[in-house]
Amino acid sequence: MSTYLQRAEKIVDRINELAAISEDSSCVTRTYGTPSFVEGSKKVLTWMNEAGLQTHIDNIGNVRGKLVSKKAGAKTFVIASHIDTVVNAGKFDGPLGVIMGIDLVEHIKNTDIDFNIEIIAFSDEEGVRFHTTFLGSNVVTGNFDTVLLNKKDANGILLREVITSNGGNPNQLVQDAIPKESWLGYYEMHIEQGPVLYEKNIPAAVVTAIAGQKRIEVALAGFAGHAGTVPMDMRQDALAAAAVCILAIERFGLENKDHIVATVGKLEVNHAASNVIPGKVVFSIDLRGASATYLEQAYHTIEEICTTICKARNIGIEWNLVQETAPVLCDKNLSNLLSGSIKEAGHSVIELVSGAGHDAMAVATVSPVSMLFIRCYKGISHNPLENAEVNDIAEAIKISEAFIQNLIQQHS
Amino acid sequence: MSTYLQRAEKIVDRINELAAISEDSSCVTRTYGTPSFVEGSKKVLTWMNEAGLQTHIDNIGNVRGKLVSKKAGAKTFVIASHIDTVVNAGKFDGPLGVIMGIDLVEHIKNTDIDFNIEIIAFSDEEGVRFHTTFLGSNVVTGNFDTVLLNKKDANGILLREVITSNGGNPNQLVQDAIPKESWLGYYEMHIEQGPVLYEKNIPAAVVTAIAGQKRIEVALAGFAGHAGTVPMDMRQDALAAAAVCILAIERFGLENKDHIVATVGKLEVNHAASNVIPGKVVFSIDLRGASATYLEQAYHTIEEICTTICKARNIGIEWNLVQETAPVLCDKNLSNLLSGSIKEAGHSVIELVSGAGHDAMAVATVSPVSMLFIRCYKGISHNPLENAEVNDIAEAIKISEAFIQNLIQQHS
Repeated sequence: MSTYLQRAEKIVDRINELAAISEDSSCVTRTYGTPSFVEGSKKVLTWMNEAGLQTHIDNIGNVRGKLVSKKAGAKTFVIASHIDTVVNAGKFDGPLGVIMGIDLVEHIKNTDIDFNIEIIAFSDEEGVRFHTTFLGSNVVTGNFDTVLLNKKDANGILLREVITSNGGNPNQLVQDAIPKESWLGYYEMHIEQGPVLYEKNIPAAVVTAIAGQKRIEVALAGFAGHAGTVPMDMRQDALAAAAVCILAIERFGLENKDHIVATVGKLEVNHAASNVIPGKVVFSIDLRGASATYLEQAYHTIEEICTTICKARNIGIEWNLVQETAPVLCDKNLSNLLSGSIKEAGHSVIELVSGAGHDAMAVATVSPVSMLFIRCYKGISHNPLENAEVNDIAEAIKISEAFIQNLIQQHS
Repeated sequence: MSTYLQRAEKIVDRINELAAISEDSSCVTRTYGTPSFVEGSKKVLTWMNEAGLQTHIDNIGNVRGKLVSKKAGAKTFVIASHIDTVVNAGKFDGPLGVIMGIDLVEHIKNTDIDFNIEIIAFSDEEGVRFHTTFLGSNVVTGNFDTVLLNKKDANGILLREVITSNGGNPNQLVQDAIPKESWLGYYEMHIEQGPVLYEKNIPAAVVTAIAGQKRIEVALAGFAGHAGTVPMDMRQDALAAAAVCILAIERFGLENKDHIVATVGKLEVNHAASNVIPGKVVFSIDLRGASATYLEQAYHTIEEICTTICKARNIGIEWNLVQETAPVLCDKNLSNLLSGSIKEAGHSVIELVSGAGHDAMAVATVSPVSMLFIRCYKGISHNPLENAEVNDIAEAIKISEAFIQNLIQQHS
């Protein structure tokens, strides 16, 4: 029997094998429905077959492999992640969870289990091609919005055409859903995509929630003027006002760092010139948190802070909420089981909130969900530098195997 | 004899007449050497002729009108401003000084004066067409750099070709210079292009200096990261660091407002996205002051402040001085005469530093210079809203006439 390290090494080999299948030979790019994507899917299907699973590729392109329980009317526990990528992606974001899932079931397939385990490689989480996310997981949960079938990619190709040309039937997506009552739970292993585990030197952590998000666009209106002729005390400088807002938002985020993250990522000075006092500035605020109540409070407090700052400086402010998603809580029972398995494996238990979205968000509408974050190098992701160490993957297998065994115990 | 108000009304009529000569019928645009520019120059030449001056248009296109003294070997006192404009300009920036100059000599032409008075409408102060400034005044001072003759405009036309096609000889520019020893002094009347007189409710003020300028480009390097996954206390946010710099620069400017103005006019976030923590930010600093020593000190202090801020935040900083011009002091004797005339006219004497460049800067290399700033509406300039009130122009005539009379006394 192979050691966890040997299993991890095989997983990394497969990660590399899949990464080599790319739309662009100089980097990893495998967006939904492209020939490279289809080729990658077939590779994953082969691995699922080798693991002894009942496999098929569904209509939206999810690769699915099931370990069927002998128990009549057994519910299904899904272990999944995605295999589509962003442009110029890393190798681990998505595929790691799928390939680890295949490894996991391969090593317990001879166990008597009172529930089915289905490994799924979701076909679209990143949403690069059709500017949507969760195409794959929304089909499996039965929440797919058929309006999306008429979405066009950059070349004018419809989503329904992509489905058809890859052998799917866009009118039968509903048949690919796992009925709500059949879900036992959901487990996703994913790189953290943040620096906490790297900084704390811990291989993996339990995810307690996926943060909700509010995206705000703020426009400040001062008065443009000549940088040489308007005295310092007669200015209405929109950029200086924006600077005060940025620092107040940062301070608020730091003071409330256990509950939210707040980021000003975009800032544009209209008609900017080095010799013109900025008259109009537009900036973005990205606000995320695991608690809906807290997120809402933070949103209003930050609006109040910015409004007060602008009033004091005689600067006009327009505040627009442009996007929001609600937080998703991971299931307490599954997370407790997972924390216990981390402890059994000899690691400190760190509870993380995922600031990025994951398929688990889509699945949470129909099933209890759980997630394990695996340390990645400096938290770098969506970048060729993305990396997870083989030792950490070995620890994550150990943790996940214990988790599944505990789950089997719980349900036997 | 007409009153000052009547003279001011005539001046405004001429301002409007000249403004109607434009490359674009919907706004005022009269850039160097264009057919509209040539037509405008001929209009100004006519007015100089009507005023009884000895006139000609020189090779670079300056319109010149001289009131010749009977005294042998008389020096020349130049009253001038420019008649080229920016794109979509105001009507007063430049033409006001020229047209007021013509009015002034017209009303003293029968006086016995021991020096020549030459009114000049400089052909290029704004530098829009050839991305240079002071083409006209540099010829008159003998400082014209003939390398510029091979500069091309946006249509690939050479400056030398423009000169030739408008009847000038690019090889004889040197003959248009007033020899250094012949300059008695220089006087320029100009709208303030800033809000001080408007705010203080004073029609005109003496200019003591034209500010020197340093333009700096500052690049800050932090570390880009996912807005959702990097905790608040693990960030290296280049925009937040820039915000601290912007506010420190503003504070330094306010604390030293009698000596400098400091402006951050441009700011760009590289690869900006609302969900990405800014990794690189580039911003400009425009620093101006009347004292070379103070400007130099301020420059180094601000560099030190920004460096300290970035160090504390673990942000890299690149500091590049991209442009600098030295301050120009107006002549003490001429400025005292002018202040006296402002007092005689019944107004408080305000001393202003010009934060914008003017032809007087170029002339200061060969002659004592003096300037009068005339109030303009809210300090707005380079904009169709630019305006100077007829009452203020009347006061400026009164002041300038007293100034010239005092100068005549001083030199008789």
